[in-house]
Amino acid sequence: MTLAITPQVLRYQAGSISSDVDELAIEEPLEIRVRGRAISITMRTPGDDPELAAGFLLSEGVVRSRSDLLKIEPCDRNPDGNLINVLLAPEVAVDFAKLTRHVFASSSCGLCGKATIDALRGTFAPIDSPLAVDASMLLKFPGTMRAAQKTFARTGGLHAAALFDAGGAMIALREDVGRHNAVDKVLGFGLMHDMIPLSSHVLLVSGRLSFEIMQKALAGRVPIVAAVSAPSSLAVEFAEENGQTLVGFLRDQRMNVYSHAHRIQF
Amino acid sequence: MTLAITPQVLRYQAGSISSDVDELAIEEPLEIRVRGRAISITMRTPGDDPELAAGFLLSEGVVRSRSDLLKIEPCDRNPDGNLINVLLAPEVAVDFAKLTRHVFASSSCGLCGKATIDALRGTFAPIDSPLAVDASMLLKFPGTMRAAQKTFARTGGLHAAALFDAGGAMIALREDVGRHNAVDKVLGFGLMHDMIPLSSHVLLVSGRLSFEIMQKALAGRVPIVAAVSAPSSLAVEFAEENGQTLVGFLRDQRMNVYSHAHRIQF
Repeated sequence: MTLAITPQVLRYQAGSISSDVDELAIEEPLEIRVRGRAISITMRTPGDDPELAAGFLLSEGVVRSRSDLLKIEPCDRNPDGNLINVLLAPEVAVDFAKLTRHVFASSSCGLCGKATIDALRGTFAPIDSPLAVDASMLLKFPGTMRAAQKTFARTGGLHAAALFDAGGAMIALREDVGRHNAVDKVLGFGLMHDMIPLSSHVLLVSGRLSFEIMQKALAGRVPIVAAVSAPSSLAVEFAEENGQTLVGFLRDQRMNVYSHAHRIQF
Repeated sequence: MTLAITPQVLRYQAGSISSDVDELAIEEPLEIRVRGRAISITMRTPGDDPELAAGFLLSEGVVRSRSDLLKIEPCDRNPDGNLINVLLAPEVAVDFAKLTRHVFASSSCGLCGKATIDALRGTFAPIDSPLAVDASMLLKFPGTMRAAQKTFARTGGLHAAALFDAGGAMIALREDVGRHNAVDKVLGFGLMHDMIPLSSHVLLVSGRLSFEIMQKALAGRVPIVAAVSAPSSLAVEFAEENGQTLVGFLRDQRMNVYSHAHRIQF
């Protein structure tokens, strides 16, 4: 199960608007346990979880061959399927101090799934900004950002995040190998210029929209978050719950609005 | 400083080969310290590090406004510039247990930069595989992978990783919202089928190549790693040191070979 159907999306293309359902890649947390201890929580697309756990332990240098693994099985007390137990051969040594660098603090909860997502969601209040922007203005943002990306054009290797004001001016653009870093940098720019809450601003990212990016935008109080590419299922769910307008596939004179579409004027 | 010049790249395009230098996005670790304690190590592109630290602390709910920050400054005992100290106002409460979920265990080292990179590199021996493949075969891999990506075509929201054998057959393909998860899944497939070391295989990823992906491939003993998009500076450096052949921009009948090009036959 890698796909979720989103309840409703506002699709704008070639000047016309339609309401439709859309398919999204599923994003959910998986907690991996070894010898009863949580060693990793990762946001992943469900499916092939035993392979994910095996590959993770291989990458971490814990297991080296098939025989190091006795069994990998979902925890039957976790109906969401977001918790997996790995049984290692008794002779396999595990450096828990090194491994648990991947564990979110919130993983101390007994059950993965809904409880973990709730913990990850943090404690920010929903957005309640009256901001509204013209669709025609929004459509220009990707071109403006791309034209200003100095490094991308030369390397093709960087994510970008940009902050626009309600008048359509780009006030900050940052590039980074890590998508979350680029977002942290523009939010940090806002903070250092005493602009928090960014309640009349739009955040644009060059790639896809994950849960994590929406959470960062919420912390900065940004009411509209747009991406050149697709959002994940959890990003849309999070945006819906937290009063954030989420725009995806903003490119080539089109866009999809996945949540709180009232902030986009067509 | 966001760009690094790679010493030499073998460029194949439209049937001809040239040797050239190339510009890469820089990837380096940054350690963020609050009240003398490391709270995060992130692989980032150098530049605007104070903003990165400020935005990170905003996202984590530690700071809410400009006045919570007294000062953000690079640690002058760290010549690489990969360590930054954040001075918070005394009244700002910090939940270190929650924050340090982002800290790599290796960050207990006093200096960030080279020491941290070395620690992150782990303990895998370099690759010494005699595998060599035809460039013409490699050029077909992205098309094969894309054609088999069931979910991407419908959502545009997933990274993919695929494993090919020396004859050019795709033996595993996995999609995930997280690039590292897709790689873990194909490596886990290899492990669960008792195929480690994967010394006569090629790993292909749909996006960019970071340090982390090269490290995972090394754990699986994969000698050739290819990507449809660009590698980071650290990915190339790591590949060079560890005997891995790194191929970037593998698409549209072209490719760049950044390290150990002897495994690609033109």
